[in-house]
Amino acid sequence: MKLLEDRIIKEGEVLGKDVLKVDSFINHQIDVRFLIRLGAEFAARYRGEHITKILTLEASGIAVAAMTALHFDVPVVFAKKMASRNIGNEVYSTEVPSFTRGNVNTVYVSKKYLKKEDRVLIIDDFLADGNSLSGMIALCDQAGAAVVGCGVLIEKVFQGGGDRVRRRCRVESLAKIASMEDGKIVFAPDASKTDL
Amino acid sequence: MKLLEDRIIKEGEVLGKDVLKVDSFINHQIDVRFLIRLGAEFAARYRGEHITKILTLEASGIAVAAMTALHFDVPVVFAKKMASRNIGNEVYSTEVPSFTRGNVNTVYVSKKYLKKEDRVLIIDDFLADGNSLSGMIALCDQAGAAVVGCGVLIEKVFQGGGDRVRRRCRVESLAKIASMEDGKIVFAPDASKTDL
Repeated sequence: MKLLEDRIIKEGEVLGKDVLKVDSFINHQIDVRFLIRLGAEFAARYRGEHITKILTLEASGIAVAAMTALHFDVPVVFAKKMASRNIGNEVYSTEVPSFTRGNVNTVYVSKKYLKKEDRVLIIDDFLADGNSLSGMIALCDQAGAAVVGCGVLIEKVFQGGGDRVRRRCRVESLAKIASMEDGKIVFAPDASKTDL
Repeated sequence: MKLLEDRIIKEGEVLGKDVLKVDSFINHQIDVRFLIRLGAEFAARYRGEHITKILTLEASGIAVAAMTALHFDVPVVFAKKMASRNIGNEVYSTEVPSFTRGNVNTVYVSKKYLKKEDRVLIIDDFLADGNSLSGMIALCDQAGAAVVGCGVLIEKVFQGGGDRVRRRCRVESLAKIASMEDGKIVFAPDASKTDL
């Protein structure tokens, strides 16, 4: 999606070989009008899929998920992080290693908000090694909910998580980064139908 | 705001004397269309105040802040939590004791996203002891930004934080809870101009 690629080129900061900071419009400061346009793209790509719920992970997925949910008119559920493993029987839970922080979080969703009748679109800001998406898919599996697919803003293709998650379900990425060597962002071809 | 009070009565769960769970539409599952209507109320109350930025605290403030920012057409900045105190010179930071979790978080905002020219509306889901709002006010003070006021969805008046914060700036709460004794929610009078 050219709209997002252009913004990444303009404002993204590459740190080392594999970290991309987009703090000026997604991850710290949030450009809400811009995110609504990205959410519209997910809505276009998943049109007709009868999504009943959008699942994301706190904290940086929440704004993207909320702006996407507006187009589908369904609730967002955000999985919560907790240090402890003792989180009771009222929740589905799984462990998610964090790429950016280098730790492992237990993430959970209340059984009240994820049901076997649900058709879930999983939304996140980044797809790197795929651990966040895989964790959210595991939560859906525990609930018996159908995972219709995933929508991520930025996929770092060279980290391989996309291949892993696509073996399980459909994944739509609005910007695919093929490499960031020497601080230069190279995008992979965009297979989207629209060209915003 | 009757719209919010009715929803709290219908779906809120009182735990003990002072915890109110609104996980079905604000804090875990998010009703985005509902939050947009609450955001419109903040926009009405702070109309003409030339807000340039909305500041909130991850994670549960993000959706409310984003849905409010749509009405103002300004960016959201969310203060981030970090366990460590070693977070460098590029940020403003302060310590915020958490009422619900019983711990203390260091919260920070990049100096890039909070400027002395900013006129800030601080948004949060709950106002209990006032520590979160006071922390965000402290971040604005460090930046030299003007705090126009605070907007919170639910103020637990009996915990006294509102009085404390109002000595510093304007605070608008969409639902004010006077008491929750024996699980019964009693609202304080609503001084809002509108009656949605």
